[in-house]
Amino acid sequence: MKVFFDPIQKAHAPETFLVSGMWRPCPEVPERADRFLAAVRDLGLSVTAPGDAGMAPLAAIHTAEYLDFLRTIHARWQDLGGSRDVLPNVHPVGREGCYPRSPVGRAGYHLGDTACPVTAETWEAVYRSAQTAVAAADAVRGGDRVAYALCRPPGHHAAADLAGGFCYLNNAAIAAQRLRSVYDRVATLDIDLHHGNGTQNIFYQRGDVLTVSLHADPMDFYPFFWGHAAERGAGPGLGANLNLPLALGTEEAGWLAALDVALARIAAFAPGALVVSLGVDASAADPFGGLRVSPEGFVAAGQRIAALGLPTALVQEGGYLSDSLGLCLNRFLSGVLETVGA
Amino acid sequence: MKVFFDPIQKAHAPETFLVSGMWRPCPEVPERADRFLAAVRDLGLSVTAPGDAGMAPLAAIHTAEYLDFLRTIHARWQDLGGSRDVLPNVHPVGREGCYPRSPVGRAGYHLGDTACPVTAETWEAVYRSAQTAVAAADAVRGGDRVAYALCRPPGHHAAADLAGGFCYLNNAAIAAQRLRSVYDRVATLDIDLHHGNGTQNIFYQRGDVLTVSLHADPMDFYPFFWGHAAERGAGPGLGANLNLPLALGTEEAGWLAALDVALARIAAFAPGALVVSLGVDASAADPFGGLRVSPEGFVAAGQRIAALGLPTALVQEGGYLSDSLGLCLNRFLSGVLETVGA
Repeated sequence: MKVFFDPIQKAHAPETFLVSGMWRPCPEVPERADRFLAAVRDLGLSVTAPGDAGMAPLAAIHTAEYLDFLRTIHARWQDLGGSRDVLPNVHPVGREGCYPRSPVGRAGYHLGDTACPVTAETWEAVYRSAQTAVAAADAVRGGDRVAYALCRPPGHHAAADLAGGFCYLNNAAIAAQRLRSVYDRVATLDIDLHHGNGTQNIFYQRGDVLTVSLHADPMDFYPFFWGHAAERGAGPGLGANLNLPLALGTEEAGWLAALDVALARIAAFAPGALVVSLGVDASAADPFGGLRVSPEGFVAAGQRIAALGLPTALVQEGGYLSDSLGLCLNRFLSGVLETVGA
Repeated sequence: MKVFFDPIQKAHAPETFLVSGMWRPCPEVPERADRFLAAVRDLGLSVTAPGDAGMAPLAAIHTAEYLDFLRTIHARWQDLGGSRDVLPNVHPVGREGCYPRSPVGRAGYHLGDTACPVTAETWEAVYRSAQTAVAAADAVRGGDRVAYALCRPPGHHAAADLAGGFCYLNNAAIAAQRLRSVYDRVATLDIDLHHGNGTQNIFYQRGDVLTVSLHADPMDFYPFFWGHAAERGAGPGLGANLNLPLALGTEEAGWLAALDVALARIAAFAPGALVVSLGVDASAADPFGGLRVSPEGFVAAGQRIAALGLPTALVQEGGYLSDSLGLCLNRFLSGVLETVGA
């Protein structure tokens, strides 16, 4: 199994984010990548730097004005005399509104919450994180049964023109679109603790990409406004979105039962390939504490996902510092490896 | 001219708000009310406390869930271990999304920016601010030619279910709706420095309430996403919204010329009554510094608005501490008084 990672991804390191009205240390730290790298190397896998496929794969998912914003806003922001990193304070209610010139207005337009500060290094890190996902998708396009993209920052909360929840570019959506060039239908499966609202939003009106997510119930948990069972897609995409919200504190058995429902839906869709938004923050040890999956539960998840028999790109999403962060990834990947026999 | 004010309105006093990523002292301070009171008393006017018309006038404009949020969120917020005052950090992109249970989710749903912290005293202050507007509208309904509501907190950025920009309940909209019970058509005229986006939003699809606003161009200025000339209303309200954005730094002559355009539109609408969203932050001395109106420019504005000859409720909006804050209100009201001969 090929593994892709670029150390430039570690350059993005916002110190704080605003939550419940307080500045808190940002949990999406570069050390996460080190933990994941160690977990991968413990499995005897080697790590390759991704190539550079340029802007086209990003532009296939994100708007030109949003990509321009991510590249340029930090420099513009410095003239305001405000914070070092870019943080939003005012938001459009609907997306149909005017696109302002003001950097404060643009920050509110493109940053959907205060958990995605833009630093001087954000663009190069998220660009390389996206290229990492592209590399894994291209390995699968080239015939690999499975490949793992160690993406960081993560991506599944990012929509076409909107950052959110530590995410800027939607690496999983970029990988899925990349796979669409060789497969008529592609499925995404999001097992991160948090609903993959960006991925859902990007493909909501499309019938060629199935989006499935299991996650803590957003009635009580980030991202709050999306991830509910009633959201089933729209237009040509109606029925091609499946949300499986789980009550806070759901145990491993409930999580694996929801995973089985997700896998049955994916099998019925008969996609040519699969992208997994691989968060490991459903772990009982994760500081977010929403669900109660053990390291062995991640073995089972890896086995069952691999047993679909689909060409699969694994794209890292969340999972935060705890003693078992690396172990959860290690166990998931070992479940995959033993099933695909690689 | 009757003047209404309730000192309870001064109880709302958030210490800070978040702008450009930094905590700043909140400029919408209780002392503003003292400056306005002194200005009114310098004109020999006496001040009356408003009665209590109950929840009905508020519920005619705002949703039940939003009013419940404003009354109850501060107590719920205290369980989070976050900031003292309620501040949003995550927002729905569209308003069609689910209504979460979580207080963090609800804060994001109902607080459109970080310039409207909810304190323990916010509800009683905004409730009395709204009653002050109702009292002025009722004086006009009762036959007074003009009445002044010293409302604080202000209201014109608040929509039916959304606070923003120091505003919680839309006092001007509440007054306009109150006047609708005796007049078939009512006009609102917003001369605050900032676009009256809440008022526009509330009446956007209605043809019976004309909304007109002159303000600094939102391409570069709060509220950024609304207040553009292309916004003309929708459905039965198409054509019943007029925005007159002015380039930052526009001088008094340009402001008064825009006012004349606004007044001509109002005259053509032939309303039975007028509500003025009376911000005085277009003053050249205002700390927001967007436009360059002198105290004598406010005399001219008061004269011209009064010369419409309409029953008129004046509702205080913005205007922030400077040496001429009270003077600008005093000059505006003197222009009104000399014209109506009261």
